[in-house]
Amino acid sequence: MMKLPQILQRVAHEFPNRAGITFEGKTRTWSDVLQRCEQLAGGLRELGLKEGDRLAILSHNSSAMAELFYGPLWLGVVPVPLNWRWTKVELTPCLGDCEPAALVVDAENVEIARELVRLCSSIQTLIYVGDGDVPNGFVDYEAVLRSGERISDCPFGGDDLAAIVYTGGTTGRSKGVMLSHSNLYVNAMNHLEFDAVGVGYSIILSGPMFHISAICRLYIHTFMDVHMLILPQFDALDLMENVQKYQVTSLILISAMAALLLDHPRYSEFDLSSLRKINYGAAPMPPSLIKRLQNAFPGVGFFHGYGATEASGVISTLPAQDHHLEGAAAKRLRSVGKPAPYIELRIVDDKGEEVAPDVVGEIVIRGPNVMLGYRNMPEETAKVLRKGWYHTGDAGYRDEDNYVYLVDRMKDMIISGGENIYSVEVERAIDLHPAVRQCAVIGRPDEKWGEVVHAVISLEPGLTVTEEELIAHCHEYIAGYKCPKVLSIWDALPLSGAGKLQKNEIRDRINAQEKPR
Amino acid sequence: MMKLPQILQRVAHEFPNRAGITFEGKTRTWSDVLQRCEQLAGGLRELGLKEGDRLAILSHNSSAMAELFYGPLWLGVVPVPLNWRWTKVELTPCLGDCEPAALVVDAENVEIARELVRLCSSIQTLIYVGDGDVPNGFVDYEAVLRSGERISDCPFGGDDLAAIVYTGGTTGRSKGVMLSHSNLYVNAMNHLEFDAVGVGYSIILSGPMFHISAICRLYIHTFMDVHMLILPQFDALDLMENVQKYQVTSLILISAMAALLLDHPRYSEFDLSSLRKINYGAAPMPPSLIKRLQNAFPGVGFFHGYGATEASGVISTLPAQDHHLEGAAAKRLRSVGKPAPYIELRIVDDKGEEVAPDVVGEIVIRGPNVMLGYRNMPEETAKVLRKGWYHTGDAGYRDEDNYVYLVDRMKDMIISGGENIYSVEVERAIDLHPAVRQCAVIGRPDEKWGEVVHAVISLEPGLTVTEEELIAHCHEYIAGYKCPKVLSIWDALPLSGAGKLQKNEIRDRINAQEKPR
Repeated sequence: MMKLPQILQRVAHEFPNRAGITFEGKTRTWSDVLQRCEQLAGGLRELGLKEGDRLAILSHNSSAMAELFYGPLWLGVVPVPLNWRWTKVELTPCLGDCEPAALVVDAENVEIARELVRLCSSIQTLIYVGDGDVPNGFVDYEAVLRSGERISDCPFGGDDLAAIVYTGGTTGRSKGVMLSHSNLYVNAMNHLEFDAVGVGYSIILSGPMFHISAICRLYIHTFMDVHMLILPQFDALDLMENVQKYQVTSLILISAMAALLLDHPRYSEFDLSSLRKINYGAAPMPPSLIKRLQNAFPGVGFFHGYGATEASGVISTLPAQDHHLEGAAAKRLRSVGKPAPYIELRIVDDKGEEVAPDVVGEIVIRGPNVMLGYRNMPEETAKVLRKGWYHTGDAGYRDEDNYVYLVDRMKDMIISGGENIYSVEVERAIDLHPAVRQCAVIGRPDEKWGEVVHAVISLEPGLTVTEEELIAHCHEYIAGYKCPKVLSIWDALPLSGAGKLQKNEIRDRINAQEKPR
Repeated sequence: MMKLPQILQRVAHEFPNRAGITFEGKTRTWSDVLQRCEQLAGGLRELGLKEGDRLAILSHNSSAMAELFYGPLWLGVVPVPLNWRWTKVELTPCLGDCEPAALVVDAENVEIARELVRLCSSIQTLIYVGDGDVPNGFVDYEAVLRSGERISDCPFGGDDLAAIVYTGGTTGRSKGVMLSHSNLYVNAMNHLEFDAVGVGYSIILSGPMFHISAICRLYIHTFMDVHMLILPQFDALDLMENVQKYQVTSLILISAMAALLLDHPRYSEFDLSSLRKINYGAAPMPPSLIKRLQNAFPGVGFFHGYGATEASGVISTLPAQDHHLEGAAAKRLRSVGKPAPYIELRIVDDKGEEVAPDVVGEIVIRGPNVMLGYRNMPEETAKVLRKGWYHTGDAGYRDEDNYVYLVDRMKDMIISGGENIYSVEVERAIDLHPAVRQCAVIGRPDEKWGEVVHAVISLEPGLTVTEEELIAHCHEYIAGYKCPKVLSIWDALPLSGAGKLQKNEIRDRINAQEKPR
């Protein structure tokens, strides 16, 4: 039976004295991490938590966050990480949905926790993971660890529930993705891409640990004995200091983070030569940024991953050897690579029939990594899980060599004058303009065309571009009907906790500012 | 959920037209193999087989054998491969234990099947997979495939039973090892050692497909898109002809097979330069043989695997980069490498406490590959599965670098004059004598010493050695009490179907020939 706790038990036995997790200057060995997780299980049992209970977590990244993804599993208690950027209005439905027995919060979330506990009657215990004095009405996390016996045997695994992760909620009510031990285990095991287990890799985790991209990395890196340096959140300076101090070998970046790093005024002060591997996700990086990164970090391998919460992490990967800036293979840089070796991936039309290579359709996948379903949402589950196939909602195509290309979220497709326009394609054209730093393309309602293409950009420092210039630039790369009709220039574009562009927020701001033409 | 059929469905979708399985000159693509397995599921349903039924198989290797490890799984029917070297007396208890609804046999096993069906009342149907006319009372395998609808959806997986494999039965009643989808899946997935999926590897399977070492390879090589060439059984000439004809890249050999290959009179006639990788198992090869192989196949990587039926295949592996014939690392050649990355491995004393490096104890393992248990044997199961730890019965130790060394089967340990003697250690010393081709060391009852060390050897062609010379030779390498007291020279030593030395048979023959001294 596949048991997530066993991943940690194994590494703690094989490499007991190797660095496991570092947070705020404190490093714990794998043996220490295991011991604390087993103590956490015992402490939670003392608090009355039992098999099937949910434990909600509202906290910035910390070593405790990592422990909270392991310890509860020994008891059959399910961690439910929540997005700390969300408001009370957004969090309340999640708590009502998962009915946690306890809520863990850090210092920044004490006040909201007091409000939430009044609204959510299932919460019996508030646990505090912050520094300093323990607020009234809260139990100290470290006291919980000291309060119980260490539990070492975990009878749970396989298809048992191991986490509920609420999806970004870009549209409609947030959905609680139910992931099993087996789901997360197989995703972790796939990362034998790291090849040699126990060769001294280290990685910085700075993405928020309420998001699958960071959660799955916990298990991946435990599996592979990769020393994890956890930062409370992404900060370019903090990241560079840590790379230098701990001789870090690996990073996980998204385009926005990579640019913040390279553009940082103190970038050149740091020795980042220990880096060997940079993972990036969410979306392909513009080739210009890849080129900058390759120049900045010669000899570093770049790995691109495309994934989904419902897929327990990774769906497809583009490895270092596919990062060619020139020649026929350069087009693969725009792809999200090939499916993980345990995933069946198909591109289907709206009847569910597979389409030919190079034809756009919906990406659907099947495999042991596909979620159990959405909590309390049988209809939503049935919509996306059909005969074992998860329907990603992403539009894409495969080329003759089976590389997968994303064109857009199905629902983000712009239809203008009856033509389908994939915003990614337009964004790629805009990105090629040297003055553009960030860009998002949305469809805005229009009486004549149905929708028109509206581009929102931010600028590189010291550079500028006019609406006319940018539209003329786009005409060089894409068909006229795809080119933006309107341009807005903002200081910065809003990002989600995972660093993805928040298109819904951009859309809302645009719609609030302007009436349809 | 981890489903073995999905392994085949994936490869058939990704690489539909690549060669999947070749047998007797006929190659089927992955797409063909999948179609036949799905047809087999439909045909078995027509015959009345249903979820939970067992399907016994008594046949030499064939492409049908491979299909029989997939097709039944769509129905929840469990394949039970049986050892065709066994007599009616040995087979009957297995059939009584697993109560199969049907029995599949090849031409060589038609007569014994007629007897078995009279003894085993559960068998409703006999299926014939041989060539030529279908014997009376048998259903033709190909007709079964044509008789039903293709079944494509498999609702089974995870901890559901996927195979029952009877262990060699070297001592006591043969035990039915129950393996789940998840067990065999995780073992297959570990072989991401092959790195790039779909790079044109091919492998010859000549070991008997009733043994876990061949069964697990079916799933491994399907997973990795490795073209499998199935031989009815091991034959050095047949093997060399196939390597040359199909430009085979990989082999699975045991020491005995490797020697038969290199010593074959027509060895030099064949072009075997396509070989890239040679896997060997069962036991470490003598360094002299590794050296011969390395000279014969320059540039070929050697991989050693140690495993068990109860572990669904592999426990530990020694990769190519650890095959050093000289220097400090050369001692690793005597090891069985390091545990697979999902396995916890410990060496424990008779109280179950872990022992220090270099101290001999029993090898115990824990992980998602560990069997569900022995069928109908709760007491035997409880003996070897304790708190999730499988007790292998193998004695061994770990060095400071975590390489694992086997010293002997616990039960094969010789106790002479109160000293524990591990026969492997004695065998290793004997093997170093140039005249020795095969060797086995057993303990023979002795009035004075309890047991004495008795060596049985066969000789290299044209060479010879006397008892005195061999004992003197051993004294150079091992302590006096470990040296053989008696030597028998036979033309050849008996091998099991898997090519392992049959120590019980050797012991029986020795005891029949001679009284204890």
